[in-house]
Amino acid sequence: MTEAARLASTIGLESLSIGTLASNLGLSKSGLFAHFGSKENLQVQIIESATELFTEVVIRPAVREARGEPRVKALFENWLRWASGEFLPGGCIFVTAGVEFDDRPGPVRDALAETQRRWNHTLQKAADLAVEMGHFRPDLDAATFAFAAYGIMLSSQHYHRLLASPDAMDRARAAFEALLKHGRGDRLEPAPNPWGKH
Amino acid sequence: MTEAARLASTIGLESLSIGTLASNLGLSKSGLFAHFGSKENLQVQIIESATELFTEVVIRPAVREARGEPRVKALFENWLRWASGEFLPGGCIFVTAGVEFDDRPGPVRDALAETQRRWNHTLQKAADLAVEMGHFRPDLDAATFAFAAYGIMLSSQHYHRLLASPDAMDRARAAFEALLKHGRGDRLEPAPNPWGKH
Repeated sequence: MTEAARLASTIGLESLSIGTLASNLGLSKSGLFAHFGSKENLQVQIIESATELFTEVVIRPAVREARGEPRVKALFENWLRWASGEFLPGGCIFVTAGVEFDDRPGPVRDALAETQRRWNHTLQKAADLAVEMGHFRPDLDAATFAFAAYGIMLSSQHYHRLLASPDAMDRARAAFEALLKHGRGDRLEPAPNPWGKH
Repeated sequence: MTEAARLASTIGLESLSIGTLASNLGLSKSGLFAHFGSKENLQVQIIESATELFTEVVIRPAVREARGEPRVKALFENWLRWASGEFLPGGCIFVTAGVEFDDRPGPVRDALAETQRRWNHTLQKAADLAVEMGHFRPDLDAATFAFAAYGIMLSSQHYHRLLASPDAMDRARAAFEALLKHGRGDRLEPAPNPWGKH
């Protein structure tokens, strides 16, 4: 299934037919068809398999980090690597498939939305723990924090893949560092304004 | 061309054939084919037409606002409305087409990347002006600011369209407000920590 997810991450979930998969794996099309039953079922299983891989490479190593800010940072850093194509060549398959399926109600869209909702919950919980530990300020809105972190990941994928921007990952880390500062409630000392146009 | 862009925003740029467009517009397929010459040319022209619409509804009204933070805010607010589907039903066509074409080198990808680079430049320039006017702090990295703003828009589209989250727009505004605070260098006074676990 990982091979199927690798393929789907580049050509798109909708373009991946049982025939394409069979020829890429060197298996018989009729055998694969008997196994999956339908293209839709294949698509749902690819999402489930990608979710397992995501849990393995993004969530599990981060949960070993200390609760609070260290864990939030590890989740984000692993997620960036996931989106960069280190594990699936087309980048984050949930983003590409999400754009493909957001207009198409059915089991594929449901599976995608469910896995993304769970991930969003994991991120929020990690930010909430950071509040509890006193690393983030008590009035931090963890849902907005997760939303903004999501955006930084999406932006890194957009800049990296469409704009071929060589500093997409560095920008993402800088933007996340600013978001962490906001989370901690650091006092940002404004430097003196050299123009004095206030 | 606006009708073509409307269609492409929902079904995808690649799925939009000259035949589909002809039947939607009630025109002859051969006439449209004579006009566009190729599907690729049709796709490039759709991107150009969407870029004109974007300039009209997002950039032009914002440029009428005062330089500095007011203009940055207007650009973002108009952009959010653009992504929400107010102008093209499928949301931001540059995002959906970007995901479709980021793996496919050629004139369509080039046109998409060019229009997104120009928009990124416009956003950065607006943030730079806000620094010059003294609205944003002098050491603000305008490129990272634009990157983070991009992410918030992408996140709003993802939450709104895939997760069907009813508060996607409100979250986007809250995340952007936090980004503006970071831009201004406001002192964020951390409230007293009730757990005292620092």
